[in-house]
Amino acid sequence: MQPVQHGIATAARPGEWDLLGRYWDAANYLTVAQIYLKENALLRRPLGVDDIKPRLLGHWGTSPGLSLIYAHLNRLINRTGAQVLFVAGPGHGGPAVVANLYLEGTYTDTYPRIGRDNDGLRHLIRQFSTPGGIPSHVGPPTPGSIHEGGELGYSLMHATGAALDNPGLIVACVVGDGEAETGPLEGSWKAPAFLNPARDGAVLPILHLNGWKISGPTVLGRQADEQVLALLRAHGWDPVVVSGTDPALVHPQLARALEHAHAGILEIQSGARLHGTTGPARWPAIILRTPKGWTGPAEVDGVQVEGTFRAHQVPLAGVRENPAHLAQLEAWLRSYHPETLFDDAGCLAPELAALAPQGQLRMGANPWSNGGAVQVPLPLRPLEGYALRIGVPGATKHETTKPLGEMLRDIYTDTSGNPRFRLFCPDETTSNRLGAVFEATDRCLMEPARESDEHISAGGRVMEVLSEHLCQGWLEGYLLTGRHGFFASYEAFAMVSASMTVQHAKWLQHARKLPWRKPVPSLNILLTSTCWRNDHNGFSHQGPGLIDTVLSLSGTVVRVYLPPDANTLLAAAAHVLSSKDYVNLLVVDKQEHPQYLTLADARAHAAAGASIWAWAGNAGEAHPDIVLACAGDVPTEETLAAAWLLQRHVPKLRVRVVNVMDLLVLPPRDVHPHGLPDAEFEALFTADCDVVVAWHGYARAFHQLLHGRKNPGRFHVRGYNEQGTTTTPFDMVVLNRMSRYHLALAALGRTARTVEGMDALREHCVEMLARHEVHIHEHLEDLPVIRDWVWTPPVPGPGSPGHSAPGPAVARPAVEGDQGNE
Amino acid sequence: MQPVQHGIATAARPGEWDLLGRYWDAANYLTVAQIYLKENALLRRPLGVDDIKPRLLGHWGTSPGLSLIYAHLNRLINRTGAQVLFVAGPGHGGPAVVANLYLEGTYTDTYPRIGRDNDGLRHLIRQFSTPGGIPSHVGPPTPGSIHEGGELGYSLMHATGAALDNPGLIVACVVGDGEAETGPLEGSWKAPAFLNPARDGAVLPILHLNGWKISGPTVLGRQADEQVLALLRAHGWDPVVVSGTDPALVHPQLARALEHAHAGILEIQSGARLHGTTGPARWPAIILRTPKGWTGPAEVDGVQVEGTFRAHQVPLAGVRENPAHLAQLEAWLRSYHPETLFDDAGCLAPELAALAPQGQLRMGANPWSNGGAVQVPLPLRPLEGYALRIGVPGATKHETTKPLGEMLRDIYTDTSGNPRFRLFCPDETTSNRLGAVFEATDRCLMEPARESDEHISAGGRVMEVLSEHLCQGWLEGYLLTGRHGFFASYEAFAMVSASMTVQHAKWLQHARKLPWRKPVPSLNILLTSTCWRNDHNGFSHQGPGLIDTVLSLSGTVVRVYLPPDANTLLAAAAHVLSSKDYVNLLVVDKQEHPQYLTLADARAHAAAGASIWAWAGNAGEAHPDIVLACAGDVPTEETLAAAWLLQRHVPKLRVRVVNVMDLLVLPPRDVHPHGLPDAEFEALFTADCDVVVAWHGYARAFHQLLHGRKNPGRFHVRGYNEQGTTTTPFDMVVLNRMSRYHLALAALGRTARTVEGMDALREHCVEMLARHEVHIHEHLEDLPVIRDWVWTPPVPGPGSPGHSAPGPAVARPAVEGDQGNE
Repeated sequence: MQPVQHGIATAARPGEWDLLGRYWDAANYLTVAQIYLKENALLRRPLGVDDIKPRLLGHWGTSPGLSLIYAHLNRLINRTGAQVLFVAGPGHGGPAVVANLYLEGTYTDTYPRIGRDNDGLRHLIRQFSTPGGIPSHVGPPTPGSIHEGGELGYSLMHATGAALDNPGLIVACVVGDGEAETGPLEGSWKAPAFLNPARDGAVLPILHLNGWKISGPTVLGRQADEQVLALLRAHGWDPVVVSGTDPALVHPQLARALEHAHAGILEIQSGARLHGTTGPARWPAIILRTPKGWTGPAEVDGVQVEGTFRAHQVPLAGVRENPAHLAQLEAWLRSYHPETLFDDAGCLAPELAALAPQGQLRMGANPWSNGGAVQVPLPLRPLEGYALRIGVPGATKHETTKPLGEMLRDIYTDTSGNPRFRLFCPDETTSNRLGAVFEATDRCLMEPARESDEHISAGGRVMEVLSEHLCQGWLEGYLLTGRHGFFASYEAFAMVSASMTVQHAKWLQHARKLPWRKPVPSLNILLTSTCWRNDHNGFSHQGPGLIDTVLSLSGTVVRVYLPPDANTLLAAAAHVLSSKDYVNLLVVDKQEHPQYLTLADARAHAAAGASIWAWAGNAGEAHPDIVLACAGDVPTEETLAAAWLLQRHVPKLRVRVVNVMDLLVLPPRDVHPHGLPDAEFEALFTADCDVVVAWHGYARAFHQLLHGRKNPGRFHVRGYNEQGTTTTPFDMVVLNRMSRYHLALAALGRTARTVEGMDALREHCVEMLARHEVHIHEHLEDLPVIRDWVWTPPVPGPGSPGHSAPGPAVARPAVEGDQGNE
Repeated sequence: MQPVQHGIATAARPGEWDLLGRYWDAANYLTVAQIYLKENALLRRPLGVDDIKPRLLGHWGTSPGLSLIYAHLNRLINRTGAQVLFVAGPGHGGPAVVANLYLEGTYTDTYPRIGRDNDGLRHLIRQFSTPGGIPSHVGPPTPGSIHEGGELGYSLMHATGAALDNPGLIVACVVGDGEAETGPLEGSWKAPAFLNPARDGAVLPILHLNGWKISGPTVLGRQADEQVLALLRAHGWDPVVVSGTDPALVHPQLARALEHAHAGILEIQSGARLHGTTGPARWPAIILRTPKGWTGPAEVDGVQVEGTFRAHQVPLAGVRENPAHLAQLEAWLRSYHPETLFDDAGCLAPELAALAPQGQLRMGANPWSNGGAVQVPLPLRPLEGYALRIGVPGATKHETTKPLGEMLRDIYTDTSGNPRFRLFCPDETTSNRLGAVFEATDRCLMEPARESDEHISAGGRVMEVLSEHLCQGWLEGYLLTGRHGFFASYEAFAMVSASMTVQHAKWLQHARKLPWRKPVPSLNILLTSTCWRNDHNGFSHQGPGLIDTVLSLSGTVVRVYLPPDANTLLAAAAHVLSSKDYVNLLVVDKQEHPQYLTLADARAHAAAGASIWAWAGNAGEAHPDIVLACAGDVPTEETLAAAWLLQRHVPKLRVRVVNVMDLLVLPPRDVHPHGLPDAEFEALFTADCDVVVAWHGYARAFHQLLHGRKNPGRFHVRGYNEQGTTTTPFDMVVLNRMSRYHLALAALGRTARTVEGMDALREHCVEMLARHEVHIHEHLEDLPVIRDWVWTPPVPGPGSPGHSAPGPAVARPAVEGDQGNE
């Protein structure tokens, strides 16, 4: 296909461009009115100072371009019946999108207070960027939107995610040339390598080059058409350029480009659906080059504004103070001839109203934009089919994530008739032990597979791309259009897309306050390869910080789970895959770990969020001398080993072990809905006993959660520490940092009573730590007594219960492995 | 220029490729030895099970490619004397880079324990990915490196930052095809739009396509040469392809491509330096396509490994258990003929050692890679030249960041002879009120400026690109090579590059433990457009989360400042610009805010980190009834207004105001070196008095900081709250959320004594809140009494001090503005 710069639209009806131009005028008029006016919405009287808002906020520059595209997409929809989802990358052009939604009627359908009359128009202009009103950006309150263009970079990935498994949908995605400078957006252009026309919908990028950001030029805006065309072509698209400064010339060009794109999309899809795919499709794309702030003030105070960065936000400032600016604003507003656009009642002229599509074809009423309303729950088979069979708790080891892979495999299988589940992962599905999914599907890649490939095909639905941004962004687009999924990532690099997690949480929280937005499937993030198992990769691979990030967010949307084993992970996964409107963080390592709970116990533990593991302690119903609490797989193993040491060597000490799997049971309930009532909290942790905590993340995050609990100073938290926890360097320490001996020593230091055996155990721990230090440097691995330890019920020593303290003669052979499995 | 696939290197000496091939063999041999062996480094005896490490870790796949490039860069350096900095994007190829550093001698220079003999070789292989040793990735311990390739995406931006203002340097940047899929890397290709050959060094990207990630193909790896060439060309580069599977054919191709690139760089630079620039240069780039795991096992157990994803990490597994694998490993190791590479003493053969460059031309000894050793401090003029003159504290308003802009302007001016300072910002320099810098320099863009541009030129040194990743990544590269800078960003979007901040902090922390790494200038991040002033932009623009992220990191490298006004910002800026090895976060809004402290007071306050503002309270030396603490500009203003209300209406109440500017004075000193000793902490906050805190960030972050202080429950913290703090929606609430009336009510509820006037003030606050709510919905702005409030010394009421409580008759007129400026 060739550029169509000079083509004209087919079958333009007489006067069509005039009519479309007037529709565009109406959108532009309402945009300017929203930015400036609080009264006199249709200029029925001369514009006065009192009509002007006290604070002038909003972004004019991008708005006429957005409205132009919107109006032309309306025309395309009317001609073709296409189902189009509109993604506004320049989301700060909020007033333009709201204006178009108002013109097509969906805004009034959604917010009846904003009626299609004079009173509604007054509410429309007053609500924009004012207290009690709407923010200046496209966002959750905007009908038809699945995308907030505040934090730039994600429009094209959200659009791509929306198109996956959505064969009837065209996602028209406007990308601003500012956003186009971001890394995540540049990374998104590779979508053709993953979009399968046989089963996915289409993404139609419209790269809008108006040339400027806030105050400087854009990189693509300054490049020649040929260079921008070459860039999109190199990414696999088939772009055309539409450009101009005269609307009369741009209208037919843009109309033609959209018709051409639509025809191209249908041709690609019908070809693929009839004959299969043989490689990436060359999807149409449009490069639209029009002036920034088009149709706005050409000059202000003798300085050029239209077509420059000065049109970015509010091109006429100080309107209340400067009569010349006020007059210029009035002239600008009247240049759209509002009296010809709306009748006396404030109703849009019927010939213009007729240009909007009807019913659900209106982009503000696209069903996929309110994904909760169209979502179909996932079929989940009974967990019994995946659960590990557990005998003695902690006695066997297994890769914790492997059964989850089998569960996800069956979800793929069971949704094959109505595909609505995908796993997104930066090339780590196998590494994360989720490889069972490849029994049901492949990795998706449009390039033909080669002989040396494994599980690669165009029909695959596992999305692997080495970009946390793309994985998460695609998934977000998929979820917000009512489908389901998992994002599995290495914990250390989960911070790469942390800002997206923040923004998505904010979206969900805002959406929850809008009754018309139905709950969407949750964003499920599985973090593996955790900090506790990355000593060999070094310090840069250790980062539990995403937990801290999400803990700051709203309790209404955030959940954090640290399943200690495979069966609890299954229970948690079943829960999060059925949940809606949450960001669920699951943190669990992929390596072999001890397995503790039967499925029944795992379900009960998951439902409780935190439980006393009675089998791991010896306090029974008695008040314990010390509570050992743990959260996370490695800390749980180390805690159990410490509990074993205490019971083995100091049998008279009453030890209680508490495992915390749902981190948000810890804060008081007024902070998080999962927070335990004080009585339940104290039933776990007692009201006064010291608690030695071993947990996965930064110690201070745990302390933060305890804020508001009585006497929090009795919690002594060991967690991941950037400084290292021993005297050896932090980057290559012992293989198992959260040493059981350290925990046992901490417990001994905090017990309420002094009983026999404590001093001997203290000596034993110190000695073992020293031996371990020597051993790892010589043998480059943990002492066998640590490496091979598994839980067994602690047996009393050679004497009867309460026998004398074990001296070195007792402790030392244990190291050799002939005294049980210490 | 044309692709040179079939070119051969000029002037290859007889036997040169054989010799270079043997050098490459030596690097590959040492790479494999590091991954597998703990003894028998040179295979002086048959390989035995006991020679093998217990855990096999490391990445073979990318290593031979890195070593090939390294060896050829050595050749180029020897021929041309070029000063080359090596950036290994695939940093997980750590053993290959370490091997090359060892061969050239810089590793031994840096770590004399790793000598160039048998004993040193034993240490070399044993330290790799083992306890007490080195991590598997290139990182701070790697001589010659400024880049850790763990979290992928930043190699090309670090390389670009290193080249800025470094006219004699060529940064050879290897980009893996895995990393090339990330958004940040894709965003980095636009460097030619910003690299000025007249004054900057060169970046030579070497895009290494070995075709695979961990277990799947790469997008670029599957594309035809022509498509990859087109992509780099579209980004403005002049790429050539070198590809092959036969070393004998690849050596001359690669040598030729590097010579060609070097000549091209010199031609571009000399042209620009002689004649000036007329647009972006078309810098050379190399696309290198060689097999993954080249020279490793072709097949293992009958399955192809070399040239597939199976070569990614450890291609031969279970070597200790599987005799056939052990034999294959030995054969693989012996295929490099170690006995011909090293002599009996373990010393590299002299004809190979001669291939390495000499002295500082060795890439491991590049002076810029140890930026602290070459850094030159910034000249800072006396702050008196920028400071605001302050009369009554709080009585005047000013844009807080504006004087900082003047300070940065003079730094630009005063370093023009030896340029070593740049400001990086996503197109917000003017918006952030730092526009004074444009009196000294321009925004940098290589495209010729147009008439409508302001402050755009190829010679500009303000780096504006709409990518937080690029801004921060360029700055990191600039800092790590010993220069200075500031990254200014909107607070809400600072999380975009939060993971980079984490990784940089980890780099600094690690580097501090290496005596040979000299301290580098700090990473200074200025966050403006803060959450408190983004109600109009909506919820998505409110995010103080970067504070939480950095608080989790090590106290040795992280600092957080919240200057309340312009003069304290100047004092903080002077400090951070002189500091080294820190991540300094400065959070301050750009709008007009009250100004409080004279420069002298500001310096004292900044030095103390937190102070009692005696003028704002009435407790004097007496024990206060209530402490009002504040941190951040908006919270400070609201706190002062609350203090004013309390003193005005309840004059017998003893109020103390404490301002916290350095957040890290709050934790105990064992948590952070800035932590105040308990006595000093209690001198500020008392030991027992209730403290109402108004602060900028999430309340729980403040609580977290207080952990470890006595009686932290007496601190009642108001901060940014995702849920909103009033009954109105969170996204468009009152313009000033942290309402002074709420704070006054909180203080009244926490005072130790009951004194007259409290009930009346309570009623007054409640009434004002109700009136404000009505007013903002009607008038779309704050009540004038709030909007126009400035601090004045609180005057007593109509009666004498201690007069009766103000009733409505007193309070109401105040709203009208005729009672001072309440």
